[in-house]
Amino acid sequence: MEKFNSIGLKQSFVDAREKVTGSARYLDDLEFPGLLTGKILRSPYPHARILSIDTSAAEALPGVKAVITAKDCPQNKFGMEIADVDMLAVEKVRYVGDEVAAVAAENDEIAREALKLIKVEYEELPVVDDPVKAMEKDSPLVHEEKGTNVAREYHIQRGDIEADFASCDYVFEKEFSTHRVSGLYLEPFGAVAQWESNGRLTVWTGLQSAFQGRNEIAKALGIKPTQVTVKSPFIGGGFGAKIWIRNFHPIAAVLAKKTGRPVKILLTRDEEQLTTRPRIAPRMKVKLGMMKDGTMVCKQATIVADNGAYSWAAPKVLLNLSMRTDCLYRYKSSKCDSYLVYTNLIPTSGFRGYGNSQMHFAVESFIDECCRKVGLDPVEVRLKNCVHKGDMTLHRWHIKSCELSECIRIAAEKIKENRLPAEEQDGRIKRGIGVACMTHVSGNRGGDKFDGSSAMIRIHEDGEVFIFSGEADMGQGAKTVFAQIASERLGVPIGDITVMPLDTDVSPFGMGTYSSRVTTVGGKAVFLASEKVLDQVLTLAAEMSKRQRDTMYMENGLIKCSRDPSVLMTLKEVAAKAIRSRAGVPLTAYVTYDPPTEGADKDFYGDYSSAYSFGAHGVEVEVDTHTGKVKVLRVVAVHDVGKVINELGLHGQITGGVAQGIGWCLYENMLFKNGVPATNGLHGYTFMTIKDMPAVEGIAIESNDPIGPYGAKGVGEPTLIPTAPAIANAIEDACGVRMRDLPITPEKMYWALHSPKED
Amino acid sequence: MEKFNSIGLKQSFVDAREKVTGSARYLDDLEFPGLLTGKILRSPYPHARILSIDTSAAEALPGVKAVITAKDCPQNKFGMEIADVDMLAVEKVRYVGDEVAAVAAENDEIAREALKLIKVEYEELPVVDDPVKAMEKDSPLVHEEKGTNVAREYHIQRGDIEADFASCDYVFEKEFSTHRVSGLYLEPFGAVAQWESNGRLTVWTGLQSAFQGRNEIAKALGIKPTQVTVKSPFIGGGFGAKIWIRNFHPIAAVLAKKTGRPVKILLTRDEEQLTTRPRIAPRMKVKLGMMKDGTMVCKQATIVADNGAYSWAAPKVLLNLSMRTDCLYRYKSSKCDSYLVYTNLIPTSGFRGYGNSQMHFAVESFIDECCRKVGLDPVEVRLKNCVHKGDMTLHRWHIKSCELSECIRIAAEKIKENRLPAEEQDGRIKRGIGVACMTHVSGNRGGDKFDGSSAMIRIHEDGEVFIFSGEADMGQGAKTVFAQIASERLGVPIGDITVMPLDTDVSPFGMGTYSSRVTTVGGKAVFLASEKVLDQVLTLAAEMSKRQRDTMYMENGLIKCSRDPSVLMTLKEVAAKAIRSRAGVPLTAYVTYDPPTEGADKDFYGDYSSAYSFGAHGVEVEVDTHTGKVKVLRVVAVHDVGKVINELGLHGQITGGVAQGIGWCLYENMLFKNGVPATNGLHGYTFMTIKDMPAVEGIAIESNDPIGPYGAKGVGEPTLIPTAPAIANAIEDACGVRMRDLPITPEKMYWALHSPKED
Repeated sequence: MEKFNSIGLKQSFVDAREKVTGSARYLDDLEFPGLLTGKILRSPYPHARILSIDTSAAEALPGVKAVITAKDCPQNKFGMEIADVDMLAVEKVRYVGDEVAAVAAENDEIAREALKLIKVEYEELPVVDDPVKAMEKDSPLVHEEKGTNVAREYHIQRGDIEADFASCDYVFEKEFSTHRVSGLYLEPFGAVAQWESNGRLTVWTGLQSAFQGRNEIAKALGIKPTQVTVKSPFIGGGFGAKIWIRNFHPIAAVLAKKTGRPVKILLTRDEEQLTTRPRIAPRMKVKLGMMKDGTMVCKQATIVADNGAYSWAAPKVLLNLSMRTDCLYRYKSSKCDSYLVYTNLIPTSGFRGYGNSQMHFAVESFIDECCRKVGLDPVEVRLKNCVHKGDMTLHRWHIKSCELSECIRIAAEKIKENRLPAEEQDGRIKRGIGVACMTHVSGNRGGDKFDGSSAMIRIHEDGEVFIFSGEADMGQGAKTVFAQIASERLGVPIGDITVMPLDTDVSPFGMGTYSSRVTTVGGKAVFLASEKVLDQVLTLAAEMSKRQRDTMYMENGLIKCSRDPSVLMTLKEVAAKAIRSRAGVPLTAYVTYDPPTEGADKDFYGDYSSAYSFGAHGVEVEVDTHTGKVKVLRVVAVHDVGKVINELGLHGQITGGVAQGIGWCLYENMLFKNGVPATNGLHGYTFMTIKDMPAVEGIAIESNDPIGPYGAKGVGEPTLIPTAPAIANAIEDACGVRMRDLPITPEKMYWALHSPKED
Repeated sequence: MEKFNSIGLKQSFVDAREKVTGSARYLDDLEFPGLLTGKILRSPYPHARILSIDTSAAEALPGVKAVITAKDCPQNKFGMEIADVDMLAVEKVRYVGDEVAAVAAENDEIAREALKLIKVEYEELPVVDDPVKAMEKDSPLVHEEKGTNVAREYHIQRGDIEADFASCDYVFEKEFSTHRVSGLYLEPFGAVAQWESNGRLTVWTGLQSAFQGRNEIAKALGIKPTQVTVKSPFIGGGFGAKIWIRNFHPIAAVLAKKTGRPVKILLTRDEEQLTTRPRIAPRMKVKLGMMKDGTMVCKQATIVADNGAYSWAAPKVLLNLSMRTDCLYRYKSSKCDSYLVYTNLIPTSGFRGYGNSQMHFAVESFIDECCRKVGLDPVEVRLKNCVHKGDMTLHRWHIKSCELSECIRIAAEKIKENRLPAEEQDGRIKRGIGVACMTHVSGNRGGDKFDGSSAMIRIHEDGEVFIFSGEADMGQGAKTVFAQIASERLGVPIGDITVMPLDTDVSPFGMGTYSSRVTTVGGKAVFLASEKVLDQVLTLAAEMSKRQRDTMYMENGLIKCSRDPSVLMTLKEVAAKAIRSRAGVPLTAYVTYDPPTEGADKDFYGDYSSAYSFGAHGVEVEVDTHTGKVKVLRVVAVHDVGKVINELGLHGQITGGVAQGIGWCLYENMLFKNGVPATNGLHGYTFMTIKDMPAVEGIAIESNDPIGPYGAKGVGEPTLIPTAPAIANAIEDACGVRMRDLPITPEKMYWALHSPKED
């Protein structure tokens, strides 16, 4: 067993002190001389034509420095997959919250007052609020020029699905659905835009993907990407909703340009709830074919997903939703027909799980339901069918490390231990357990695109190590993981390592923080750069000490020779010599790493992630049959993480993922009535509080992935994914009721318990 | 003849627009929220013991946030060659201007008021204001603990000087002296210090050597160099006085620490005149041995130089002063005894020429004087004795490129053309011409130390090229030269190139802007980094176009194939492919270049500069014999620059160097009376104005140095050096009077004209 000095420790986050003392600067902590407040006027209608906008009264208000509408903005539609967004509405508004006008003023109060003075005349248009109806031929169109409300569709088939279903002993089919929820990160999203004296634009913003953001801001403004510098302050959570820019980014830039002063736009919590990029809400008709012995043969799905008014990452999310669960079991064939449909609701996008959570809810629920129906043990069926190391899945994932069966086994065993009684209070309280499992990616190559990461490591003349990476730490602990990897590989105490802030002018190019890719690809780049700079150090140290290069090593910041204990130099000595002496060595290594993966081809085949993560959650719940209230009592979360880098960080991810999964499953829901949000900010938006948080037992299985740094795989998203289906399975175990539509609110649960049973 | 697209052009400075529109941000343009003003209380006495300091009244003044004295500061003496500086005076003050206490307050007015409220009791001490007297045994000591006022001495001999003098037909000996002058850059020096949330210190300051400054600030504060980040705003001139930190740098940091707010200290012009680092003022006894045929055989010098109260770069400056002119001619032997002596006057340091100007004044004046005395033509004597390409000088400089004789010849010829009459107004106005020449370094390796530079060049996905260098542009045009070199080598229009601001966390390590080294070593690093990143581009372009790598080239941002005109790609296309596609190429090259030079050994032998610059100035002057006023009419400045990179920048350097040389020679002087400055700021400090500026004809000779980028050598300092002796030689030509003590003021000139002639 290899011994580690830094990897696998319970490592406090390297920025923990700044965070707990409040000295860490988040966006709103940044101050700038002459800073103006930017505020956005938003549509109160889900669908309306703009007849006129009168900004004169707002402009006349003392303290107002600029009022802009679409006519003041460059007209470059932007977006990630489909360019369908205008920074300010042109001609019509498409959802409640759509950006109509913006002001920059000396302070918040004046800016808010100015918004009230902008007079907009609207002509209301018929509202499209149901994706199935939106697909009908004579439905009103959200984007007329497209001629359809279908934003994207996929039709993917593997194997002879018809023949396989025909050969099955059992064929089951049911519809599942999930809903919109908000990322609810602690820090609302925002940006400060400032034009520099050389005509370049600096944007301070907590984007998960600073480089992609730079390009999108430039695209919206019609300037070159390198005219924009994105600098990241501390980020207070993102969960996917901060991967991509929002309209306020270019709006802040236009206001800053017009006023010649820096402009800060920070969303209020109400604005966040109106315009955050929630999970896609799909209806998923799932059909499973099984044999009597529990062999899972084939799977078919028809999906209609509500995209909302504008498409950002939703097409990509739908693709994951359509395909990814097919790689969890050894199906013979699969088929999927999926549709992403524009409506006049809040635009959706990626959110922790990126579509994978939704379909896992459907499939992992449905497997239990089917098994129960025919008397099979769902855990045994999972173990019988799940993928293993060495497998090539239907979509041609090459599974290079996999302890999925071990995860399932342990989750199932552990959740059975110390169970509470199945019933209490004369049957009012019913308890049950359930298990669900999952697979997810660690990075995701899109086609022929780059999916790697670069790292620059620089050792300064006092022996301090600076790491530059283009990947963001949104609070998940990336800086700490990078510092640990460099500490381990270099042999330098973690206290001598600084991870530099993200700045697109300076940091190496990085795709950003999504697809649970940061530890695997970002960390691998840090690993390789450490290796490269260590070689520079040891080569020079060998020269200095007149010893063989291959006998030299570094440990705890000290450079030693394996054959001569008298050789002892500090890194500082060698660094000073390297940098300050004749023929100086830069002690700077810049490495680009791109994992040996293949982006999906035109038929969506491809081994597009270097490592696939696996996990299983066992859950115990109790259902109050009088009120319908479901309470999660215990969660055992078992994850094949490849290798634990930071045990503290890992358990933070597990606990957070479980909590967010429970919130999604039981509590949160963004509701609409005729296209108008029925949840008023957070006032009508229920979420879980600490009193409902169950005990979470996190268990890490180390499969030592051959590609990830030190064998590590991504764990950010996986910890959320199996939570909801495990809860639904435990509910059926508790009270025999199958819940197929999220969230499982007390009301829904009550009526399900007290209505006549379906067949 | 090689054809160039960018090298040799009259290239407007890349930051010209920002500068002429006033949008360029210099230190005082930087604004920070909560910024405090720092001000320093300075000693009114040249030498005094501090008996007590009472800061209570100042502390009580509303708006004062901190008052500090030495007891509030880390007690780490700092300095460049000799650590003899305390950031605030401990026990005693050593010159008028010495830092005694400092305040931070809400604004300038309050800070100034607070200074007045600090009560300091002094006990005056005997003043040491003459370096010769200061060397006497019972002189009061400036630094008691040293036991002597001699800060440094050198005794350097080459060859058998005694025998050589004995063999000479003529031996001449005279004493020359020069004086203190101020750098008089347009922008006073200053700094903003701010402690970051992670305990690191950021200092914005226009240092010529940001990295060395970082170390000195850290040393003064007793922290690690990498805890300090030095960021450079635009710099409004430095001329050597901004190479090293001043006391205000750590003082601002201590004030910022104590107040928890950013603190800006910007020197007033009066403070600059009190505390700037002027030229060392030496007395130079020079002895020359010549033969009747004009052969210069040997040279001896005895130098006593006034160091002032603290030693910064003065020991290095004295070393240059002692040695460098020996390499201008083919002497058989030389000897120098030099002493650097502490006094209670303003501390001296390096200033454009770095000691070389002072000894050139002495020697280049004295050669003319001696030749006249024995009827030799000084120009012919120079041509007969000057060094040539391939020479190894007495101190073992290896002259790899040299057009010195050509420079002398052209300067002498050109200054003779279109001469005005030798006399006018019945002999009141007398005119004459004179020539002097010089040699200087382009970089200067100190011992075994690094004298190179690193550059990082990064091509972004839109094809924009970013250059990172650790060398400062203090206004001399380094950014433009770097951009031209990259433009030429890469084949990219200069408009697509951005030279990034200097930031010690991010920019590659650089020694800084001094020794006329930036174009040669900094530029060479940029050249090599361009080459390396171009290779990445062309290799990928060859793959993309399926052509041979060695047929690919880039021209004007377009990538072409020499064998197939149908191949045509933009750099943007290739960059996007490189960065965004599978197995991404970083398009980032980091190169460290260290020239093939040898630092001086313990006996000061060494070929320590990669390239030696040469030049000669021809000057025509007129002397008003009634008033003693000397006016320079014309200057022909001929310089062997190796290769012209930017013709505009070169002529800016020539005109500026000539102007500064005239100012030194005829106008400026920092005067003292019993150690107290007699020039009150600029009120009593005469300097040349535009109405006295002569016509300057700059002529560049290209010797194509084998090492410098495109053959270029340094030209920053050389353009000043021969100006003063050429003027003195022209004065003797005009009116037969030899002036050996600078500056040549009308008063001195008048008395020299009207006193009995010395022999």
